[in-house]
Amino acid sequence: MDNFLKKNERLEDLGIRGLKIIQNPECFCFGIDAVLLAWFASGGVKFKSRVIDLGTGTGIIPLLIYGRTDAKCIQALEIQENMAEMARRSVACNGLEERIEIIHGDIRNPSGAVVPTSYDVVVSNPPYMKVDHGFKCTAETKAISRHEILCNIEDVVVFGKKMLKDRGKLFLIHKADRIGDIVAAMRAHHIEPKRLQFVHPYVDKPANLVLVEGIKAGKPYVIVEPPIVVYKADGCYTDKINEIYGSDGPRDRVIAKGSEL
Amino acid sequence: MDNFLKKNERLEDLGIRGLKIIQNPECFCFGIDAVLLAWFASGGVKFKSRVIDLGTGTGIIPLLIYGRTDAKCIQALEIQENMAEMARRSVACNGLEERIEIIHGDIRNPSGAVVPTSYDVVVSNPPYMKVDHGFKCTAETKAISRHEILCNIEDVVVFGKKMLKDRGKLFLIHKADRIGDIVAAMRAHHIEPKRLQFVHPYVDKPANLVLVEGIKAGKPYVIVEPPIVVYKADGCYTDKINEIYGSDGPRDRVIAKGSEL
Repeated sequence: MDNFLKKNERLEDLGIRGLKIIQNPECFCFGIDAVLLAWFASGGVKFKSRVIDLGTGTGIIPLLIYGRTDAKCIQALEIQENMAEMARRSVACNGLEERIEIIHGDIRNPSGAVVPTSYDVVVSNPPYMKVDHGFKCTAETKAISRHEILCNIEDVVVFGKKMLKDRGKLFLIHKADRIGDIVAAMRAHHIEPKRLQFVHPYVDKPANLVLVEGIKAGKPYVIVEPPIVVYKADGCYTDKINEIYGSDGPRDRVIAKGSEL
Repeated sequence: MDNFLKKNERLEDLGIRGLKIIQNPECFCFGIDAVLLAWFASGGVKFKSRVIDLGTGTGIIPLLIYGRTDAKCIQALEIQENMAEMARRSVACNGLEERIEIIHGDIRNPSGAVVPTSYDVVVSNPPYMKVDHGFKCTAETKAISRHEILCNIEDVVVFGKKMLKDRGKLFLIHKADRIGDIVAAMRAHHIEPKRLQFVHPYVDKPANLVLVEGIKAGKPYVIVEPPIVVYKADGCYTDKINEIYGSDGPRDRVIAKGSEL
Protein backbone atom coordinates (compact mmCIF):
# COMPACT_ATOMS: atom_id res chain seq x y z
CA MET A 1 0.00 0.00 0.00
CA ASP A 2 2.90 2.30 0.75
CA ASN A 3 3.47 2.98 -2.92
CA PHE A 4 0.15 4.87 -3.11
CA LEU A 5 1.39 7.40 -0.57
CA LYS A 6 3.37 10.60 -1.00
CA LYS A 7 5.25 12.67 1.54
CA ASN A 8 3.10 13.67 4.56
CA GLU A 9 0.24 11.46 3.43
CA ARG A 10 -1.27 8.65 5.45
CA LEU A 11 -3.68 5.84 4.67
CA GLU A 12 -6.73 5.54 6.93
CA ASP A 13 -9.14 2.66 7.36
CA LEU A 14 -12.74 3.87 6.89
CA GLY A 15 -14.09 0.86 8.75
CA ILE A 16 -16.77 0.21 6.10
CA ARG A 17 -16.41 -2.72 3.70
CA GLY A 18 -12.63 -2.55 4.15
CA LEU A 19 -12.42 0.86 2.46
CA LYS A 20 -9.33 3.04 2.86
CA ILE A 21 -8.66 6.71 2.16
CA ILE A 22 -5.52 8.80 1.70
CA GLN A 23 -5.34 11.91 3.85
CA ASN A 24 -2.77 14.69 3.97
CA PRO A 25 -2.92 16.77 7.17
CA GLU A 26 -1.04 19.56 5.33
CA CYS A 27 -4.07 19.89 3.03
CA PHE A 28 -7.76 19.66 3.85
CA CYS A 29 -8.84 16.55 5.78
CA PHE A 30 -12.44 15.36 5.81
CA GLY A 31 -14.55 15.99 8.91
CA ILE A 32 -17.81 14.93 10.53
CA ASP A 33 -19.78 17.01 7.98
CA ALA A 34 -18.77 14.67 5.14
CA VAL A 35 -19.68 11.62 7.24
CA LEU A 36 -23.09 13.11 8.09
CA LEU A 37 -23.79 14.04 4.48
CA ALA A 38 -22.85 10.61 3.13
CA TRP A 39 -25.19 9.04 5.71
CA PHE A 40 -28.01 11.52 4.94
CA ALA A 41 -27.69 11.17 1.16
CA SER A 42 -27.29 7.38 1.10
CA GLY A 43 -31.02 6.89 1.78
CA GLY A 44 -31.67 8.54 -1.61
CA VAL A 45 -29.28 6.33 -3.58
CA LYS A 46 -30.59 3.19 -5.29
CA PHE A 47 -28.81 0.38 -7.13
CA LYS A 48 -29.06 1.99 -10.55
CA SER A 49 -28.67 5.59 -9.34
CA ARG A 50 -26.24 7.81 -11.16
CA VAL A 51 -24.55 9.91 -8.47
CA ILE A 52 -22.23 12.91 -8.69
CA ASP A 53 -20.40 14.61 -5.82
CA LEU A 54 -19.41 18.25 -6.34
CA GLY A 55 -16.18 19.41 -4.75
CA THR A 56 -15.22 15.97 -3.52
CA GLY A 57 -11.92 17.00 -1.89
CA THR A 58 -10.32 13.82 -0.53
CA GLY A 59 -13.00 11.68 -2.20
CA ILE A 60 -14.53 10.76 1.17
CA ILE A 61 -18.16 11.13 0.06
CA PRO A 62 -18.07 8.84 -2.99
CA LEU A 63 -16.16 6.27 -0.93
CA LEU A 64 -18.69 6.38 1.94
CA ILE A 65 -21.68 6.34 -0.43
CA TYR A 66 -20.15 3.35 -2.21
CA GLY A 67 -19.70 1.78 1.23
CA ARG A 68 -23.29 2.45 2.30
CA THR A 69 -25.23 1.74 -0.90
CA ASP A 70 -25.26 -0.32 -4.07
CA ALA A 71 -24.67 2.69 -6.34
CA LYS A 72 -23.39 1.43 -9.64
CA CYS A 73 -21.64 4.57 -10.78
CA ILE A 74 -20.42 7.52 -8.76
CA GLN A 75 -18.66 10.48 -10.32
CA ALA A 76 -16.93 13.17 -8.29
CA LEU A 77 -15.73 16.57 -9.40
CA GLU A 78 -12.86 18.45 -7.77
CA ILE A 79 -11.47 21.78 -8.91
CA GLN A 80 -8.08 21.46 -7.20
CA GLU A 81 -5.79 19.24 -9.24
CA ASN A 82 -3.68 18.08 -6.28
CA MET A 83 -6.80 17.04 -4.34
CA ALA A 84 -8.33 15.31 -7.39
CA GLU A 85 -5.09 13.40 -7.95
CA MET A 86 -4.98 12.27 -4.30
CA ALA A 87 -8.67 11.26 -4.37
CA ARG A 88 -7.98 9.26 -7.57
CA ARG A 89 -5.19 7.39 -5.78
CA SER A 90 -7.62 6.64 -2.91
CA VAL A 91 -10.07 5.16 -5.40
CA ALA A 92 -7.27 3.15 -7.02
CA CYS A 93 -5.96 1.76 -3.76
CA ASN A 94 -9.49 0.39 -3.11
CA GLY A 95 -9.63 -1.06 -6.64
CA LEU A 96 -12.78 0.98 -7.39
CA GLU A 97 -11.77 2.67 -10.66
CA GLU A 98 -14.77 1.01 -12.37
CA ARG A 99 -17.24 2.36 -9.82
CA ILE A 100 -15.91 5.78 -8.81
CA GLU A 101 -14.60 8.30 -11.33
CA ILE A 102 -12.75 11.36 -9.99
CA ILE A 103 -12.87 14.24 -12.47
CA HIS A 104 -10.64 17.29 -12.25
CA GLY A 105 -12.83 20.25 -13.21
CA ASP A 106 -14.84 23.32 -12.32
CA ILE A 107 -18.57 22.97 -11.64
CA ARG A 108 -19.11 26.21 -13.51
CA ASN A 109 -17.59 24.69 -16.64
CA PRO A 110 -17.43 20.91 -16.28
CA SER A 111 -15.81 18.54 -18.74
CA GLY A 112 -17.67 16.30 -21.20
CA ALA A 113 -17.52 13.39 -18.71
CA VAL A 114 -20.28 15.18 -16.80
CA VAL A 115 -23.63 14.73 -18.58
CA PRO A 116 -26.44 17.24 -17.93
CA THR A 117 -29.88 16.00 -16.69
CA SER A 118 -28.52 12.48 -16.32
CA TYR A 119 -28.11 12.18 -12.52
CA ASP A 120 -30.51 10.82 -9.92
CA VAL A 121 -28.49 12.23 -7.04
CA VAL A 122 -26.19 15.24 -6.70
CA VAL A 123 -24.27 15.54 -3.43
CA SER A 124 -22.18 18.43 -2.18
CA ASN A 125 -20.33 19.48 0.94
CA PRO A 126 -19.38 22.89 -0.46
CA PRO A 127 -17.00 25.44 1.06
CA TYR A 128 -18.80 27.09 3.98
CA MET A 129 -17.36 30.52 4.51
CA LYS A 130 -18.22 33.60 2.52
CA VAL A 131 -15.13 35.13 0.99
CA ASP A 132 -15.79 38.46 2.64
CA HIS A 133 -16.56 36.91 5.98
CA GLY A 134 -14.50 35.31 8.72
CA PHE A 135 -11.09 33.77 9.02
CA LYS A 136 -9.15 32.70 5.93
CA CYS A 137 -6.60 29.86 6.01
CA THR A 138 -3.16 30.81 4.86
CA ALA A 139 -2.55 27.66 2.86
CA GLU A 140 -4.27 28.00 -0.51
CA THR A 141 -5.62 24.44 -0.65
CA LYS A 142 -7.26 24.75 2.74
CA ALA A 143 -8.68 28.14 1.83
CA ILE A 144 -10.29 26.89 -1.39
CA SER A 145 -11.76 23.88 0.41
CA ARG A 146 -13.23 25.97 3.23
CA HIS A 147 -14.17 29.32 1.65
CA GLU A 148 -16.54 30.25 -1.13
CA ILE A 149 -13.66 31.33 -3.35
CA LEU A 150 -14.36 29.14 -6.35
CA CYS A 151 -17.86 27.90 -5.49
CA ASN A 152 -20.80 29.38 -3.57
CA ILE A 153 -24.28 28.10 -2.66
CA GLU A 154 -25.80 29.52 -5.83
CA ASP A 155 -23.16 27.77 -7.99
CA VAL A 156 -23.92 24.42 -6.35
CA VAL A 157 -27.69 24.82 -6.77
CA VAL A 158 -27.39 25.96 -10.40
CA PHE A 159 -25.10 23.04 -11.18
CA GLY A 160 -27.44 20.65 -9.34
CA LYS A 161 -30.38 21.87 -11.38
CA LYS A 162 -28.45 21.41 -14.64
CA MET A 163 -27.25 17.92 -13.77
CA LEU A 164 -30.35 16.37 -12.18
CA LYS A 165 -33.13 14.53 -13.92
CA ASP A 166 -36.60 15.81 -13.02
CA ARG A 167 -37.43 14.53 -9.53
CA GLY A 168 -33.70 13.96 -8.97
CA LYS A 169 -32.34 14.79 -5.51
CA LEU A 170 -29.78 17.35 -4.36
CA PHE A 171 -28.18 16.66 -0.98
CA LEU A 172 -26.14 19.34 0.80
CA ILE A 173 -24.59 20.00 4.14
CA HIS A 174 -23.90 23.60 5.07
CA LYS A 175 -23.66 26.01 7.98
CA ALA A 176 -27.06 26.26 9.66
CA ASP A 177 -26.90 30.05 9.65
CA ARG A 178 -27.04 29.97 5.83
CA ILE A 179 -30.42 28.20 5.73
CA GLY A 180 -32.10 31.35 4.39
CA ASP A 181 -29.64 31.58 1.50
CA ILE A 182 -29.96 27.87 0.76
CA VAL A 183 -33.77 27.84 0.68
CA ALA A 184 -33.86 31.04 -1.39
CA ALA A 185 -31.32 29.69 -3.92
CA MET A 186 -33.12 26.36 -4.25
CA ARG A 187 -36.51 28.01 -4.66
CA ALA A 188 -35.09 30.38 -7.29
CA HIS A 189 -33.83 27.42 -9.32
CA HIS A 190 -36.85 25.11 -8.94
CA ILE A 191 -35.22 22.70 -6.54
CA GLU A 192 -37.72 22.37 -3.73
CA PRO A 193 -36.31 21.85 -0.22
CA LYS A 194 -38.01 18.64 0.95
CA ARG A 195 -36.09 17.52 4.02
CA LEU A 196 -33.99 19.41 6.56
CA GLN A 197 -32.05 18.03 9.49
CA PHE A 198 -30.27 20.39 11.83
CA VAL A 199 -27.09 19.38 13.64
CA HIS A 200 -26.53 20.82 17.12
CA PRO A 201 -23.17 20.44 18.89
CA TYR A 202 -25.02 20.05 22.21
CA VAL A 203 -28.75 19.61 22.83
CA ASP A 204 -29.08 23.11 24.32
CA LYS A 205 -26.97 24.97 21.73
CA PRO A 206 -27.95 26.49 18.37
CA ALA A 207 -27.44 24.32 15.29
CA ASN A 208 -24.11 24.75 13.52
CA LEU A 209 -24.85 22.57 10.49
CA VAL A 210 -27.86 21.66 8.38
CA LEU A 211 -28.45 18.70 6.08
CA VAL A 212 -30.70 19.58 3.15
CA GLU A 213 -32.49 17.39 0.61
CA GLY A 214 -34.04 19.16 -2.37
CA ILE A 215 -36.01 17.66 -5.25
CA LYS A 216 -35.82 19.12 -8.73
CA ALA A 217 -39.32 20.29 -9.74
CA GLY A 218 -40.67 18.95 -6.42
CA LYS A 219 -43.74 20.26 -4.63
CA PRO A 220 -43.55 22.47 -1.52
CA TYR A 221 -43.77 20.94 2.00
CA VAL A 222 -40.67 20.18 3.98
CA ILE A 223 -40.00 17.47 6.55
CA VAL A 224 -37.86 18.83 9.39
CA GLU A 225 -36.29 15.68 10.78
CA PRO A 226 -35.47 15.17 14.47
CA PRO A 227 -32.34 17.15 15.35
CA ILE A 228 -28.95 15.45 15.40
CA VAL A 229 -27.00 16.22 18.57
CA VAL A 230 -23.26 15.55 18.29
CA TYR A 231 -21.98 15.55 21.88
CA LYS A 232 -23.43 14.53 25.21
CA ALA A 233 -22.87 16.89 28.15
CA ASP A 234 -19.71 14.93 29.01
CA GLY A 235 -18.21 15.71 25.59
CA CYS A 236 -18.55 12.13 24.26
CA TYR A 237 -20.40 11.42 21.02
CA THR A 238 -24.13 10.75 21.35
CA ASP A 239 -25.58 7.37 20.43
CA LYS A 240 -26.87 8.90 17.18
CA ILE A 241 -23.38 9.94 16.07
CA ASN A 242 -21.99 6.54 17.00
CA GLU A 243 -24.78 4.98 14.94
CA ILE A 244 -23.97 7.22 11.93
CA TYR A 245 -20.25 6.50 12.12
CA GLY A 246 -21.07 2.83 12.67
CA SER A 247 -19.51 0.89 15.51
CA ASP A 248 -16.51 0.47 13.31
CA GLY A 249 -16.59 3.87 11.57
CA PRO A 250 -14.01 6.28 10.16
CA ARG A 251 -12.09 7.65 13.11
CA ASP A 252 -8.52 8.49 12.36
CA ARG A 253 -7.34 4.94 12.07
CA VAL A 254 -3.99 5.41 10.30
CA ILE A 255 -2.83 2.16 8.71
CA ALA A 256 0.17 3.47 6.74
CA LYS A 257 2.25 6.63 6.42
CA GLY A 258 3.98 8.03 3.36
CA SER A 259 7.76 8.32 3.24
CA GLU A 260 9.16 11.49 4.72
CA LEU A 261 11.41 11.81 1.68
CA MET B 1 -67.27 38.30 36.31
CA ASP B 2 -70.21 36.29 35.02
CA ASN B 3 -71.69 39.33 33.27
CA PHE B 4 -68.77 39.27 30.81
CA LEU B 5 -69.79 35.82 29.65
CA LYS B 6 -72.24 34.70 27.00
CA LYS B 7 -73.78 31.30 26.39
CA ASN B 8 -71.20 28.46 26.09
CA GLU B 9 -68.35 30.76 27.10
CA ARG B 10 -66.07 30.22 30.06
CA LEU B 11 -63.54 32.37 31.85
CA GLU B 12 -60.06 30.89 32.28
CA ASP B 13 -57.23 31.94 34.57
CA LEU B 14 -54.02 32.45 32.53
CA GLY B 15 -51.89 32.12 35.66
CA ILE B 16 -49.77 35.18 34.76
CA ARG B 17 -50.26 38.46 36.66
CA GLY B 18 -53.84 37.43 37.46
CA LEU B 19 -54.86 37.61 33.79
CA LYS B 20 -58.07 35.94 32.60
CA ILE B 21 -59.38 35.06 29.14
CA ILE B 22 -62.81 34.22 27.74
CA GLN B 23 -62.96 31.04 25.68
CA ASN B 24 -65.79 29.48 23.73
CA PRO B 25 -65.26 25.80 22.93
CA GLU B 26 -67.86 26.09 20.16
CA CYS B 27 -65.48 28.50 18.38
CA PHE B 28 -61.71 28.40 18.13
CA CYS B 29 -59.81 28.01 21.44
CA PHE B 30 -56.15 28.98 21.76
CA GLY B 31 -53.55 26.22 21.84
CA ILE B 32 -49.91 25.62 22.71
CA ASP B 33 -48.85 27.42 19.51
CA ALA B 34 -50.09 30.77 20.86
CA VAL B 35 -48.34 30.19 24.18
CA LEU B 36 -45.06 29.32 22.41
CA LEU B 37 -45.30 32.35 20.13
CA ALA B 38 -46.01 34.78 22.99
CA TRP B 39 -42.98 33.37 24.84
CA PHE B 40 -40.77 33.51 21.71
CA ALA B 41 -41.82 37.05 20.76
CA SER B 42 -41.69 38.52 24.25
CA GLY B 43 -37.89 38.62 24.17
CA GLY B 44 -38.19 41.16 21.33
CA VAL B 45 -40.62 43.47 23.15
CA LYS B 46 -39.28 46.42 25.11
CA PHE B 47 -41.01 48.93 27.40
CA LYS B 48 -41.73 51.43 24.67
CA SER B 49 -42.34 48.91 21.89
CA ARG B 50 -45.38 49.33 19.72
CA VAL B 51 -46.73 45.84 19.12
CA ILE B 52 -49.44 44.54 16.81
CA ASP B 53 -50.85 41.01 16.66
CA LEU B 54 -52.42 39.93 13.37
CA GLY B 55 -55.37 37.57 13.54
CA THR B 56 -55.56 37.62 17.32
CA GLY B 57 -58.53 35.25 17.64
CA THR B 58 -59.34 35.02 21.35
CA GLY B 59 -56.81 37.76 22.16
CA ILE B 60 -54.49 35.27 23.86
CA ILE B 61 -51.27 36.67 22.38
CA PRO B 62 -51.70 40.34 23.41
CA LEU B 63 -52.73 39.18 26.89
CA LEU B 64 -49.69 36.88 27.28
CA ILE B 65 -47.30 39.50 25.83
CA TYR B 66 -48.76 42.04 28.26
CA GLY B 67 -48.21 39.46 31.02
CA ARG B 68 -44.62 38.74 30.01
CA THR B 69 -43.31 42.22 29.11
CA ASP B 70 -43.67 45.90 29.90
CA ALA B 71 -45.15 46.72 26.47
CA LYS B 72 -46.95 50.02 26.73
CA CYS B 73 -49.31 49.59 23.79
CA ILE B 74 -50.47 46.43 22.08
CA GLN B 75 -52.91 46.44 19.19
CA ALA B 76 -54.54 43.31 17.83
CA LEU B 77 -56.41 42.83 14.59
CA GLU B 78 -59.11 40.20 14.06
CA ILE B 79 -61.15 39.73 10.91
CA GLN B 80 -64.01 37.82 12.49
CA GLU B 81 -66.35 40.21 14.28
CA ASN B 82 -67.61 37.66 16.84
CA MET B 83 -64.02 36.74 17.81
CA ALA B 84 -62.96 40.41 18.00
CA GLU B 85 -65.95 41.17 20.23
CA MET B 86 -65.11 38.28 22.56
CA ALA B 87 -61.42 39.28 22.70
CA ARG B 88 -62.51 42.85 23.52
CA ARG B 89 -64.53 41.54 26.46
CA SER B 90 -61.46 39.56 27.64
CA VAL B 91 -59.42 42.76 27.59
CA ALA B 92 -62.19 44.60 29.45
CA CYS B 93 -62.57 41.99 32.14
CA ASN B 94 -58.84 42.43 32.87
CA GLY B 95 -59.26 46.23 32.92
CA LEU B 96 -56.68 46.58 30.14
CA GLU B 97 -58.56 48.75 27.66
CA GLU B 98 -55.81 51.39 27.95
CA ARG B 99 -53.06 48.90 27.10
CA ILE B 100 -54.59 46.48 24.60
CA GLU B 101 -56.74 47.59 21.66
CA ILE B 102 -58.69 44.93 19.77
CA ILE B 103 -59.49 46.10 16.24
CA HIS B 104 -62.03 44.40 14.00
CA GLY B 105 -60.54 44.46 10.50
CA ASP B 106 -58.86 42.74 7.59
CA ILE B 107 -55.04 42.79 7.38
CA ARG B 108 -55.39 43.31 3.64
CA ASN B 109 -57.29 46.54 4.24
CA PRO B 110 -56.84 47.65 7.86
CA SER B 111 -58.60 50.58 9.50
CA GLY B 112 -57.00 53.94 10.27
CA ALA B 113 -56.19 52.78 13.82
CA VAL B 114 -53.38 50.74 12.27
CA VAL B 115 -50.47 53.04 11.35
CA PRO B 116 -47.96 51.86 8.69
CA THR B 117 -44.20 51.75 9.54
CA SER B 118 -44.93 52.55 13.18
CA TYR B 119 -44.48 49.16 14.87
CA ASP B 120 -41.42 47.67 16.55
CA VAL B 121 -42.95 44.21 16.70
CA VAL B 122 -45.52 42.41 14.56
CA VAL B 123 -46.72 39.02 15.84
CA SER B 124 -48.88 36.47 14.08
CA ASN B 125 -50.16 32.96 14.64
CA PRO B 126 -51.85 32.78 11.23
CA PRO B 127 -54.17 30.06 9.97
CA TYR B 128 -52.08 27.02 9.12
CA MET B 129 -53.80 24.98 6.50
CA LYS B 130 -53.83 25.71 2.80
CA VAL B 131 -57.36 26.04 1.51
CA ASP B 132 -56.83 23.31 -1.06
CA HIS B 133 -55.15 20.97 1.38
CA GLY B 134 -56.31 18.86 4.29
CA PHE B 135 -59.36 18.69 6.47
CA LYS B 136 -61.74 21.65 6.76
CA CYS B 137 -63.80 22.32 9.88
CA THR B 138 -67.50 22.49 9.30
CA ALA B 139 -68.06 25.48 11.59
CA GLU B 140 -67.16 28.66 9.70
CA THR B 141 -65.40 30.35 12.63
CA LYS B 142 -63.13 27.38 13.22
CA ALA B 143 -62.44 27.09 9.50
CA ILE B 144 -61.40 30.74 9.15
CA SER B 145 -59.15 30.47 12.23
CA ARG B 146 -57.42 27.32 11.00
CA HIS B 147 -57.33 27.58 7.22
CA GLU B 148 -55.75 30.10 4.88
CA ILE B 149 -59.16 31.29 3.71
CA LEU B 150 -58.83 34.97 4.50
CA CYS B 151 -55.09 35.20 5.20
CA ASN B 152 -52.06 33.28 3.92
CA ILE B 153 -48.32 33.47 4.67
CA GLU B 154 -47.73 36.03 1.93
CA ASP B 155 -50.50 38.29 3.32
CA VAL B 156 -48.95 38.21 6.79
CA VAL B 157 -45.46 38.98 5.50
CA VAL B 158 -46.67 41.78 3.24
CA PHE B 159 -48.66 43.30 6.09
CA GLY B 160 -45.68 42.90 8.45
CA LYS B 161 -43.43 44.70 5.99
CA LYS B 162 -45.92 47.58 5.66
CA MET B 163 -46.41 47.97 9.40
CA LEU B 164 -42.84 47.55 10.71
CA LYS B 165 -40.27 50.25 11.19
CA ASP B 166 -36.91 49.44 9.61
CA ARG B 167 -35.17 46.86 11.85
CA GLY B 168 -38.57 46.04 13.35
CA LYS B 169 -39.26 42.37 14.09
CA LEU B 170 -41.85 39.97 12.71
CA PHE B 171 -42.58 36.91 14.88
CA LEU B 172 -44.56 33.97 13.49
CA ILE B 173 -45.43 30.46 14.42
CA HIS B 174 -46.41 28.13 11.62
CA LYS B 175 -46.37 24.52 10.51
CA ALA B 176 -42.76 23.36 10.17
CA ASP B 177 -43.49 21.88 6.75
CA ARG B 178 -44.14 25.41 5.43
CA ILE B 179 -40.63 26.65 6.29
CA GLY B 180 -39.72 26.89 2.59
CA ASP B 181 -42.76 29.08 1.87
CA ILE B 182 -42.08 31.25 4.93
CA VAL B 183 -38.42 31.88 4.11
CA ALA B 184 -39.22 32.53 0.45
CA ALA B 185 -42.03 34.99 1.31
CA MET B 186 -39.87 36.85 3.85
CA ARG B 187 -36.94 37.07 1.46
CA ALA B 188 -39.21 38.34 -1.32
CA HIS B 189 -40.43 41.17 0.93
CA HIS B 190 -37.09 42.13 2.54
CA ILE B 191 -37.82 40.65 5.92
CA GLU B 192 -34.76 38.58 6.70
CA PRO B 193 -35.28 35.39 8.71
CA LYS B 194 -32.93 35.81 11.69
CA ARG B 195 -33.99 33.19 14.21
CA LEU B 196 -35.74 29.83 13.83
CA GLN B 197 -36.78 27.44 16.54
CA PHE B 198 -38.35 24.12 15.60
CA VAL B 199 -40.90 22.41 17.83
CA HIS B 200 -40.91 18.60 17.88
CA PRO B 201 -43.73 16.66 19.56
CA TYR B 202 -41.16 14.06 20.70
CA VAL B 203 -37.37 14.19 20.54
CA ASP B 204 -37.24 11.53 17.81
CA LYS B 205 -40.10 12.87 15.65
CA PRO B 206 -40.08 15.48 12.86
CA ALA B 207 -40.92 19.05 13.84
CA ASN B 208 -44.58 20.01 13.53
CA LEU B 209 -44.19 23.73 14.28
CA VAL B 210 -41.58 26.42 13.72
CA LEU B 211 -41.10 29.74 15.48
CA VAL B 212 -39.66 32.40 13.15
CA GLU B 213 -38.16 35.82 13.88
CA GLY B 214 -37.56 38.06 10.88
CA ILE B 215 -36.07 41.55 10.80
CA LYS B 216 -37.19 44.12 8.27
CA ALA B 217 -34.21 45.08 6.12
CA GLY B 218 -32.01 42.77 8.22
CA LYS B 219 -28.84 41.07 7.01
CA PRO B 220 -28.66 37.36 6.16
CA TYR B 221 -27.46 34.78 8.74
CA VAL B 222 -29.94 32.83 10.80
CA ILE B 223 -29.66 31.45 14.33
CA VAL B 224 -31.30 28.04 14.55
CA GLU B 225 -32.08 27.77 18.25
CA PRO B 226 -32.02 24.50 20.20
CA PRO B 227 -35.14 22.47 19.38
CA ILE B 228 -38.16 22.59 21.64
CA VAL B 229 -39.48 19.13 22.47
CA VAL B 230 -43.06 19.11 23.78
CA TYR B 231 -43.51 15.67 25.31
CA LYS B 232 -41.28 13.23 27.12
CA ALA B 233 -41.52 9.56 26.13
CA ASP B 234 -44.11 9.07 28.91
CA GLY B 235 -46.40 11.69 27.30
CA CYS B 236 -45.85 14.33 30.02
CA TYR B 237 -44.66 17.83 29.12
CA THR B 238 -40.88 18.32 29.06
CA ASP B 239 -39.19 20.68 31.52
CA LYS B 240 -38.87 23.24 28.69
CA ILE B 241 -42.63 23.33 28.08
CA ASN B 242 -43.30 23.61 31.81
CA GLU B 243 -40.80 26.49 31.91
CA ILE B 244 -42.56 28.24 28.97
CA TYR B 245 -46.02 27.81 30.50
CA GLY B 246 -44.63 28.86 33.86
CA SER B 247 -45.26 26.75 36.94
CA ASP B 248 -48.61 28.49 37.10
CA GLY B 249 -49.31 28.75 33.38
CA PRO B 250 -52.44 28.71 31.23
CA ARG B 251 -53.87 25.21 31.45
CA ASP B 252 -57.60 25.06 31.14
CA ARG B 253 -58.33 26.52 34.53
CA VAL B 254 -61.98 27.47 34.17
CA ILE B 255 -63.00 29.99 36.83
CA ALA B 256 -66.51 30.84 35.58
CA LYS B 257 -69.00 29.59 33.01
CA GLY B 258 -71.55 31.60 30.99
CA SER B 259 -75.26 31.01 31.48
CA GLU B 260 -76.72 28.26 29.34
CA LEU B 261 -79.63 30.55 28.48
